[in-house]
Amino acid sequence: MSTKPTVGFVGLGAMGFGMATHLVKQGYPVKGFDVFEKSRERFREAGGVAVSSLRESAEGNSYYVCMVASAPQVQEVLFNKESGIINVLPQDATFLLCSTVPSSYAQSVAQQLKEHGRDDIYFIDSPVSGGAKRAADGTLSIMAGASDAALEKGKFLLQEMSDSNKLYLVPGGIGAGSNMKMVHQVLAGIHILGASEAMGLAARLGLDAKETADAIINSEAWTWMHENRFPRMLEEDWNPGASALTIILKDVGIITATARLHNFPTPLSSTAEQTYLTGVLFGYGPKDDSAMVRLYFPDPIAQVSSTKSAAEKATALNLVKNLLVNVNIVAAAEAIGCARYLKVDMQQFYGLVNEAAGASAQFKSRGAEMIEGLKDGEAPAGTLTVDDAVKELSTVVAEARQLNCPLHLAGEALSLFTFAQRRGYGREAAASVLKVWEK
Amino acid sequence: MSTKPTVGFVGLGAMGFGMATHLVKQGYPVKGFDVFEKSRERFREAGGVAVSSLRESAEGNSYYVCMVASAPQVQEVLFNKESGIINVLPQDATFLLCSTVPSSYAQSVAQQLKEHGRDDIYFIDSPVSGGAKRAADGTLSIMAGASDAALEKGKFLLQEMSDSNKLYLVPGGIGAGSNMKMVHQVLAGIHILGASEAMGLAARLGLDAKETADAIINSEAWTWMHENRFPRMLEEDWNPGASALTIILKDVGIITATARLHNFPTPLSSTAEQTYLTGVLFGYGPKDDSAMVRLYFPDPIAQVSSTKSAAEKATALNLVKNLLVNVNIVAAAEAIGCARYLKVDMQQFYGLVNEAAGASAQFKSRGAEMIEGLKDGEAPAGTLTVDDAVKELSTVVAEARQLNCPLHLAGEALSLFTFAQRRGYGREAAASVLKVWEK
Repeated sequence: MSTKPTVGFVGLGAMGFGMATHLVKQGYPVKGFDVFEKSRERFREAGGVAVSSLRESAEGNSYYVCMVASAPQVQEVLFNKESGIINVLPQDATFLLCSTVPSSYAQSVAQQLKEHGRDDIYFIDSPVSGGAKRAADGTLSIMAGASDAALEKGKFLLQEMSDSNKLYLVPGGIGAGSNMKMVHQVLAGIHILGASEAMGLAARLGLDAKETADAIINSEAWTWMHENRFPRMLEEDWNPGASALTIILKDVGIITATARLHNFPTPLSSTAEQTYLTGVLFGYGPKDDSAMVRLYFPDPIAQVSSTKSAAEKATALNLVKNLLVNVNIVAAAEAIGCARYLKVDMQQFYGLVNEAAGASAQFKSRGAEMIEGLKDGEAPAGTLTVDDAVKELSTVVAEARQLNCPLHLAGEALSLFTFAQRRGYGREAAASVLKVWEK
Repeated sequence: MSTKPTVGFVGLGAMGFGMATHLVKQGYPVKGFDVFEKSRERFREAGGVAVSSLRESAEGNSYYVCMVASAPQVQEVLFNKESGIINVLPQDATFLLCSTVPSSYAQSVAQQLKEHGRDDIYFIDSPVSGGAKRAADGTLSIMAGASDAALEKGKFLLQEMSDSNKLYLVPGGIGAGSNMKMVHQVLAGIHILGASEAMGLAARLGLDAKETADAIINSEAWTWMHENRFPRMLEEDWNPGASALTIILKDVGIITATARLHNFPTPLSSTAEQTYLTGVLFGYGPKDDSAMVRLYFPDPIAQVSSTKSAAEKATALNLVKNLLVNVNIVAAAEAIGCARYLKVDMQQFYGLVNEAAGASAQFKSRGAEMIEGLKDGEAPAGTLTVDDAVKELSTVVAEARQLNCPLHLAGEALSLFTFAQRRGYGREAAASVLKVWEK
């Protein structure tokens, strides 16, 4: 007999299934619910207790994890007049909201709990990052904001689902976890599209897809998302989709909506969002987000067989890497500008990103420069400057244009570097592109 | 018997056919050539002399008009080793290059004529604007740059093809005409996409397409391009296309390539270019450019039948008009910033745009403010400010997002207005968005 408490769980999708079954493996009785019978069945087969109503998942359980897809779904789960679980969660239950939602919504949940007379519930705003595999391994990154008392109660469960060094207790209470997740997603949202943009261009250039993917992963162009998405992109393994396009679109939507609320510009995230919306229009919404490569190249990229000489290959590959390095620098700037504006703890943010799905080689190196404080004046010899970035991106964009290849992110990044140049930062380090966001 | 000189003509496409047949109607013997037999036949039926080789179109003719689609085609027409017409044009012939080409290419033509020992040719760099109908009526806008001697020789022919008050002799010699056309096309390239973006959003909002088109045309959101494209967009009359998508894409490509050369940012043109490239990817390249509406709404917009109340309609329509007004302001800023940077005669530019296909209500009013010199400090009450523009565009973008409608131009314009706001121009007139381009 288990001495571990029963955990209620709702949302057995790609991420939720992994998290819930991991808890099962760790010896927790888990009562899981999902609106899709298929998901419940899969959970049953994996050893969980799949219940057939929301009520059953919550009734009598002092610990509850919510991993549904969006704020409107969370609202239904908690506050639906008939089935909402606030009607059945036991006194002093601990409620972990792991869905990615706007921080303003997380704060409204706290308010609504109060209004419904359920502020006995220990509520933790604790979005996660890391993808389906790490969810299943219990090695997610988790960004948790809550009262000290709630964190005290729920910490053991957060620890079960996260890697030992990837549980971030974010100062600031409810909303702080979601804010941290959001600024992290600035990187994720741009890098996911960057993966498609780079591989689409590579295909247009006639490069072998597998070789290109390997070369990117082993270079300064590396990001966690590229490494994670490239295999699925090459195999066109897009159904059911470990990470549906609609999910990252929703996350990017949270970023741009919050940015609009604060009158803070997020041009690269906005470009990514519009491009994702175009993907939805062409039917890729329910597919894996790596299917976005179709908006850059019409055929399976793995079918491209290169007829280039070694020298031609090297030149073409360099274009692709330059594209990514420079886009990733601007992504780092947009994320850091946004985090700073929202008064996020910058050291925690930096540490967290480097260990999570938003990681990139450029964030690690140039992000550090940006956070420590940009140096004014001419960069030391050998440093990539704003002028260099403009030159590199100009070459990439011009070359892609010859091949009729759209480059949404590179075009936008080039505009931003060019604005930096016009403002007089041309000979400063490329990290100075962040100054475009400054007053 | 005609006393008018024979005119050689190459390029009998949508524009060229109109120009050549208009000359025929004016009593000129015109020897026209086109690579497509179908185009030659159509010209023959319209009373022209359709010749079956480039050589025949040029041999013995002291006046020659080139209206092919692109710089590489011009290069073939003039300098192909075997068929190039510099081998057959008579001594002291007058050559009108009416194609839209980069100004740097127009200058290289002058250089190449010299190198081939043919600087006896009176060469005029004279791109045109106004669409197929005005081409056929002989009421085009023409921007002509050349030596005084060449202009002297060719002026009568330019006058035949242009409206009496729309022949602009652009100071600066060869290249100046093309530069003027290019900065004019900044507006054209953005407005054409704006037409699709606005009508796509209107359809998503459930507005009647015809009513919306009429309302836009009779408002501050008016542009020449909207008025011109809406009928074709509604009828889905996309073949063969009076203005193929590839044509405006080529023109926008000239803008962004020239901008890259000068390190001048053209973010809205760049956004338009990437979106047009996406249109090409989905098969709209050879269609009329109004087919771009499909990248915003999946079905024929004319099929949308509105079930809204009058009040709901008014609110929705206001969103669509706000979108266009604010995008058109940024388009004006980008065009004027670019023109000023290239040292274009601003008064001539202003007059020309207002009479040509780049015209818009916003360019006319706020463009005048921008050219006369922006006022610093708070705008008088009742003026649309940068803050207002941010607010209006935020509302539009948020609403469109709810409907899964991409808004490429509006998203980019919002970023630019928000940058202006962050730089402290929030309470200045909306025209101050131009300051984002300043050093």
